[in-house]
Amino acid sequence: MLIVMDRTAGREDVERVVLAVERLGLKAHPIPGEVRTAIGVTGNRGAIDPAALENLPRVLEVIKVSHPYKLVSREFQPEDTVVSVGGVPVGGRKIAVMAGPCAVESLEMTVAIARAVKERGADLLRGGAFKPRTSPYSFQGLGEEGLEILAEARQLTGLPVVTEVLDTAHVPLVAKWADCLQVGARNMQNFELLKAVGRAGKPVLLKRGMAATLEELLLAAEYVMSEGNPDVILCERGIRTFSDFTRNTLDLAIIPAVERLSHLPILVDPSHGTGKRNKVIPMSRASIAAGADGIAVEVHVRPEEALSDGPQALTPDLFSELMAQLPAIAAAVGRSM
Amino acid sequence: MLIVMDRTAGREDVERVVLAVERLGLKAHPIPGEVRTAIGVTGNRGAIDPAALENLPRVLEVIKVSHPYKLVSREFQPEDTVVSVGGVPVGGRKIAVMAGPCAVESLEMTVAIARAVKERGADLLRGGAFKPRTSPYSFQGLGEEGLEILAEARQLTGLPVVTEVLDTAHVPLVAKWADCLQVGARNMQNFELLKAVGRAGKPVLLKRGMAATLEELLLAAEYVMSEGNPDVILCERGIRTFSDFTRNTLDLAIIPAVERLSHLPILVDPSHGTGKRNKVIPMSRASIAAGADGIAVEVHVRPEEALSDGPQALTPDLFSELMAQLPAIAAAVGRSM
Amino acid sequence: MLIVMDRTAGREDVERVVLAVERLGLKAHPIPGEVRTAIGVTGNRGAIDPAALENLPRVLEVIKVSHPYKLVSREFQPEDTVVSVGGVPVGGRKIAVMAGPCAVESLEMTVAIARAVKERGADLLRGGAFKPRTSPYSFQGLGEEGLEILAEARQLTGLPVVTEVLDTAHVPLVAKWADCLQVGARNMQNFELLKAVGRAGKPVLLKRGMAATLEELLLAAEYVMSEGNPDVILCERGIRTFSDFTRNTLDLAIIPAVERLSHLPILVDPSHGTGKRNKVIPMSRASIAAGADGIAVEVHVRPEEALSDGPQALTPDLFSELMAQLPAIAAAVGRSM
Amino acid sequence: MLIVMDRTAGREDVERVVLAVERLGLKAHPIPGEVRTAIGVTGNRGAIDPAALENLPRVLEVIKVSHPYKLVSREFQPEDTVVSVGGVPVGGRKIAVMAGPCAVESLEMTVAIARAVKERGADLLRGGAFKPRTSPYSFQGLGEEGLEILAEARQLTGLPVVTEVLDTAHVPLVAKWADCLQVGARNMQNFELLKAVGRAGKPVLLKRGMAATLEELLLAAEYVMSEGNPDVILCERGIRTFSDFTRNTLDLAIIPAVERLSHLPILVDPSHGTGKRNKVIPMSRASIAAGADGIAVEVHVRPEEALSDGPQALTPDLFSELMAQLPAIAAAVGRSM
Repeated sequence: MLIVMDRTAGREDVERVVLAVERLGLKAHPIPGEVRTAIGVTGNRGAIDPAALENLPRVLEVIKVSHPYKLVSREFQPEDTVVSVGGVPVGGRKIAVMAGPCAVESLEMTVAIARAVKERGADLLRGGAFKPRTSPYSFQGLGEEGLEILAEARQLTGLPVVTEVLDTAHVPLVAKWADCLQVGARNMQNFELLKAVGRAGKPVLLKRGMAATLEELLLAAEYVMSEGNPDVILCERGIRTFSDFTRNTLDLAIIPAVERLSHLPILVDPSHGTGKRNKVIPMSRASIAAGADGIAVEVHVRPEEALSDGPQALTPDLFSELMAQLPAIAAAVGRSM
Repeated sequence: MLIVMDRTAGREDVERVVLAVERLGLKAHPIPGEVRTAIGVTGNRGAIDPAALENLPRVLEVIKVSHPYKLVSREFQPEDTVVSVGGVPVGGRKIAVMAGPCAVESLEMTVAIARAVKERGADLLRGGAFKPRTSPYSFQGLGEEGLEILAEARQLTGLPVVTEVLDTAHVPLVAKWADCLQVGARNMQNFELLKAVGRAGKPVLLKRGMAATLEELLLAAEYVMSEGNPDVILCERGIRTFSDFTRNTLDLAIIPAVERLSHLPILVDPSHGTGKRNKVIPMSRASIAAGADGIAVEVHVRPEEALSDGPQALTPDLFSELMAQLPAIAAAVGRSM
Repeated sequence: MLIVMDRTAGREDVERVVLAVERLGLKAHPIPGEVRTAIGVTGNRGAIDPAALENLPRVLEVIKVSHPYKLVSREFQPEDTVVSVGGVPVGGRKIAVMAGPCAVESLEMTVAIARAVKERGADLLRGGAFKPRTSPYSFQGLGEEGLEILAEARQLTGLPVVTEVLDTAHVPLVAKWADCLQVGARNMQNFELLKAVGRAGKPVLLKRGMAATLEELLLAAEYVMSEGNPDVILCERGIRTFSDFTRNTLDLAIIPAVERLSHLPILVDPSHGTGKRNKVIPMSRASIAAGADGIAVEVHVRPEEALSDGPQALTPDLFSELMAQLPAIAAAVGRSM
Repeated sequence: MLIVMDRTAGREDVERVVLAVERLGLKAHPIPGEVRTAIGVTGNRGAIDPAALENLPRVLEVIKVSHPYKLVSREFQPEDTVVSVGGVPVGGRKIAVMAGPCAVESLEMTVAIARAVKERGADLLRGGAFKPRTSPYSFQGLGEEGLEILAEARQLTGLPVVTEVLDTAHVPLVAKWADCLQVGARNMQNFELLKAVGRAGKPVLLKRGMAATLEELLLAAEYVMSEGNPDVILCERGIRTFSDFTRNTLDLAIIPAVERLSHLPILVDPSHGTGKRNKVIPMSRASIAAGADGIAVEVHVRPEEALSDGPQALTPDLFSELMAQLPAIAAAVGRSM
């Protein structure tokens, strides 16, 4: 932590701050500059609120220096984490492609989609049994029946299943059926849920919240890891900005930023990240080119009939087109499909 | 819904859209204009995804018209809702002041703060027993012990208690002790929690999420109301923007916007909304001047020792100053304290 | 400036940074902490780019400490600046009310509006002769004819005139006719224009850009002041965010933030700040309650016929209502009208 | 335009709106729905402010339908525009790479950089002679001397020159020396400057403003085109959001969005778009993968000594690395280098 004093601060102002720092059990290091004095603070092992001292007289600003995450950081573990989702590695040299419907609607439809994406090269099946919907009057998902359908589709296709969990009460149930538990953007800071999936014994796909900073995303992953679960996959799915030609703004620079700070793998979801079918393919390509470890895309055999998010789902034909384009991009960045 | 056709759309393009609309059981009303044709769509009682038709040939744009909320809307109920929190009305002529510590730390401290705010005119006691913290290494609250402490403080001061609930599993417990259940900003779209508090039989204080639009806030309230709970109080607590001199950006224009669209009362939380003690008093005044039904502020007898959010808490002296300034503002807008 | 080293940085990494700092003519102060070393940097009088050293090995982060503004800062001048606009003080105890049409459309209309606002208590007349319009096909203003009309309205009502200048080439012309030159939000970082109005010998009303931080706003004012013009009035007019029920999001907490950092007065423009007539009165009240030195509002005698921004303009009746409500708010914060 | 009436609107409310529409010379088309009536408005050739009717009784909302741009739109010109910058095509099959220093500092340095980027395959030389700087105390550029240096570098390397123009007064001078005039992000809505470069007879590189919507960017281009200049190149350089690990947030989905709406070419500037050297290469790859027509990157032979934006400039070695990676990405999207 660094405390910056006002230009007009005198010796006794600095001493008052030094005393306050020491009273917190920390060490103060005054640094007198040309125009003002700053005071470095060391000795804080955990997280001290940066603002805790900023109301003392003649304190201009308090600047946080230490980052409160640990287990997720590359300083702590230099080598990349590779998460195994039902045997499929996420985070290694091979790009992981997760595909499937937004919501599970019926066995027939789900199996048809699973087969379609499997044939075209998908590695993992995604699909929602419990759906977080903005309106209480929208389709809320099939619940346990949806989980059974996903398991059936896995058996028929061999694709491991990734599905969302919305509430701590559902964690055991979802963990029983799924290969990977998804925590959605709206729940990224549902800390009880993060703790619960941290104890569930299954890998976790953690989506970035619409207003989450990188530090908050990493701390959400730290919640999962601090409960003993090392298998966390991050996922960029767009942030909320004023920009209005897509539903969200995909913040792809988070890919190299995560790579620098953390050992965890990161995927991109261009379907929710854009909300527009015609932008999914270009942004999938861009994600892999930026260094993502994979993508999660929505595919539906009849998007116009989908009960949820139809307009952003790819048709099987468009998914074929995507899968035809990605290998060359992957190769260009030293990855394979 | 309104479907806008491309300038180059011919008769058969328009007919294709009309047919697609009718297949959904809706009625299409083509409106030929100077340069392009638009097609009005009526007959949709519920929520149709605006984008569902936008991938048809020569469709330029699909514009949503109906709003999917109902119970929360002023169209549905013209007169203002007044929520009674343990006997204290929120939403009527009288401004409601909710004050207390961010987190409940001990019985002694909580009672001291409750007495301090009661003496200075607060109507309701706020304080967290379950705390949502960005880092897993920060103080997470006292849990049930904290709820008992709040109940004790209520008995000693007569102030009804508002406290946050983080997880569906805690709802019965919190509802047993508290007069009003708070759903925090990070959980505004935790839909399972919204349903659970909708069935808990206690008023709900619903905080706006950091990236939530007004429509999403109203739909979150609709979740609570659609479970049978009419007693919802909205709360603006700042949105996340690039603006960096406060922790969040208080979006006070939401007050007249809510008043126009909904019958529900709305409070403002200038403590979390700014994150800076020195901005709490001016923004509290601004909130009341803009027409808010009350404020929720953090007060601590020794803010520098608080385990959570100390730097934004007012001291009792500053709270006195605030309570001395508000009545004149309230009177200027036809309200009382 | 503070340079934070990686946890794994060794002695030679720190020494390399110290050397690089000294090569820039600055002084380095290493501060060894529990888990990592930070290096304070002093001796920089001007602005050094914070990032200049962040690509050296094992540097985790470089944090800027000094603020590059000087003349605008309260450290430099503790007492409030009061700007005289044609004899009307802005920034003192008295609240300044600036009112008028968005664009000057005709002599008759402008005089009618000027009289209407003068009668109801306005202090200054605002109105655009040169209009910045998003579309090239929108009304662009009357230019010099508009300036003459404003001068005529001033003569008939005694109200000093504030009007926008869009281009360096127009500065002498606008300065000849107006009492105060407005630099609009879109030009807040048009640095050549800032320098030109800094030499024009007239007060400047500087509007915050839609994406401007507080530091950028203060540095834009510093451009004007560094050319020798001390008479700068800041103006908050809303920032661009995802929030969509108003045209912009008024960031009222900037009022106490400016008061803390700068001696310059600050107004609020709730007309552009909300873009909605029905939100102008509540947000005007909120602005004064938050401590603003005045407001700038659009008034039109027939808003539905206005060539520019009609829907946000108040009618004379609504302006009367506003002027009836403000004195009590002003009194509540120790100001007068 | 579509006017949506309140649920409670009666026949006379609808008739009042119809009358108001007709009084504006437009045609009204009432569409009675299940729960409310909407009124389509046709006949508006130019831009009518969407809000112009929203204060009439029982009007719930007014929705804009027509887009006010024309010359820039793909509806108007279906085939792609290819702009020739000193003989180098921008917008065709070949990817354009623009590289050079942020600011021109000296003849020797500029020629060294120009040679370095030419050898490594750059197509165009970029560099600032007039620099927009946030602080008045930062280096403001060499002005005309800088333009002469750029021209000298062009002569020695054959690279056409792109350089920024800050003020209408400089347009003739810059147009005399440069092959392409850049309008920077801060000036995207400096409409007088847009008109001036529209008359300068040279191609224009128009950077998106930090808070600009796509519609505003296209309308800024429309200003240039409506003065008779068809040679406009758009450039994404990041928008301002809360996301804080890069200086700006690159909004790459604008690439397919522009492609859908406009025939103009679009480049990406990953140097300003991220502000971090270590993110320039991944985001350059992502830009080409998303379909951009080229990139503009900062290169400096000694970035640590650069007078402006050094830390985001690539070294020649890093630029070599980038140029080695791009061809495979370009090939994957059917383009060449």
